[in-house]
Amino acid sequence: MNLGKVVGTVVATRKESSLDGLKFMLVKHVDPEGKETGGQVVAVDAVGAGPGELVLIATGSSARQTLATKDRPCDAVIMAIVDSWEIGGTEKYRKD
Amino acid sequence: MNLGKVVGTVVATRKESSLDGLKFMLVKHVDPEGKETGGQVVAVDAVGAGPGELVLIATGSSARQTLATKDRPCDAVIMAIVDSWEIGGTEKYRKD
Amino acid sequence: MNLGKVVGTVVATRKESSLDGLKFMLVKHVDPEGKETGGQVVAVDAVGAGPGELVLIATGSSARQTLATKDRPCDAVIMAIVDSWEIGGTEKYRKD
Amino acid sequence: MNLGKVVGTVVATRKESSLDGLKFMLVKHVDPEGKETGGQVVAVDAVGAGPGELVLIATGSSARQTLATKDRPCDAVIMAIVDSWEIGGTEKYRKD
Amino acid sequence: MNLGKVVGTVVATRKESSLDGLKFMLVKHVDPEGKETGGQVVAVDAVGAGPGELVLIATGSSARQTLATKDRPCDAVIMAIVDSWEIGGTEKYRKD
Repeated sequence: MNLGKVVGTVVATRKESSLDGLKFMLVKHVDPEGKETGGQVVAVDAVGAGPGELVLIATGSSARQTLATKDRPCDAVIMAIVDSWEIGGTEKYRKD
Repeated sequence: MNLGKVVGTVVATRKESSLDGLKFMLVKHVDPEGKETGGQVVAVDAVGAGPGELVLIATGSSARQTLATKDRPCDAVIMAIVDSWEIGGTEKYRKD
Repeated sequence: MNLGKVVGTVVATRKESSLDGLKFMLVKHVDPEGKETGGQVVAVDAVGAGPGELVLIATGSSARQTLATKDRPCDAVIMAIVDSWEIGGTEKYRKD
Repeated sequence: MNLGKVVGTVVATRKESSLDGLKFMLVKHVDPEGKETGGQVVAVDAVGAGPGELVLIATGSSARQTLATKDRPCDAVIMAIVDSWEIGGTEKYRKD
Repeated sequence: MNLGKVVGTVVATRKESSLDGLKFMLVKHVDPEGKETGGQVVAVDAVGAGPGELVLIATGSSARQTLATKDRPCDAVIMAIVDSWEIGGTEKYRKD
């Protein structure tokens, strides 16, 4: 999985019908220090993530292993909202 | 998924027969500001996208989860046409 | 899919037996202007492509969705030979 | 697979329910000399790896081929803890 | 597939049990001129490859389409040993 930060939303009315009702979030990748890496992805939200939240993104066929995305043409999903992470015992991020 | 802009079409008469009737679009990746990133992909069109439109592209096995692409040797599909997106409440793109 | 140019062939006698009879082609990636990007891949030929031809390459599990590659340890396949492509109405490539 | 070094842990309470009980590890990629490459991944731990250990990471659908990760939205798994590796007969790493 | 050169071996005693008996090889990617590109991968050996040999590597789910790797958490496999390759009729590599 990749660490990412939800920064926005994408609206698409005309789409494969199996995608109706899904929410597309614009997510920027962050590194273990919490800094944006320059990469980004549009991911379906499976957990109710909101703007500014740090999340985990699963990609590829694994992005279809949620109730929301099963058998749909979706290659990236937000499957967890990050509470915190630490490196070598030092907390690098904690959600407010 | 990746944001992309449809810029052209690819014609290929001689191909795996399961691909007959599919439309191959040349799509350039764009970043959240709408600028081209330098990357591109040839994607099957599953939603009737046209030149100049901003779209979402699903890749890998997820590209085969549309009616048009199921069980076909296709690793990239246009599965949505983008109406708009916003970052931090600021609209970055809206389709004319 | 990626645009590529067939530049050579790879011979491998000792291989997983399910691959017997398949032809491995050396393919260099090209960009929408037809210029080589520096990337390359070894792909199984499913359509009778020859040296110098521009082709489409499907990768990942999609590379196994041809008659030639089904259930085989193959992650890249030539599934179409390109006749032409255009960008913004301008023809960028046409096969002789 | 990629060589990686476990450097930390990620906590995520709100997640797809099938992920309950899994442990998310922050892993930095290392090259054959054991140096960090700058890349990283968040991987589910399937083998009881701990901080500082060198591990192998499998990604994509292969990350779901462990007892811990089967059918779950997980695209990276620690499936082995590295004891040692050698290049050209020279040992490059041995676990203490 | 990617061209690679087998440069070493990785030993991992503690691993997902389905991987018992498999051999992990350290493989450096090479370009069509046979030069190392700087990339590398740890791949399961399905064909009896040895140090110094040039090989083909399949990745992703395709890496599980060999007798050795089926249903295992393996995302890269050596599925062929390269005898030779040519570009434009010029032999670039031949195994001794």
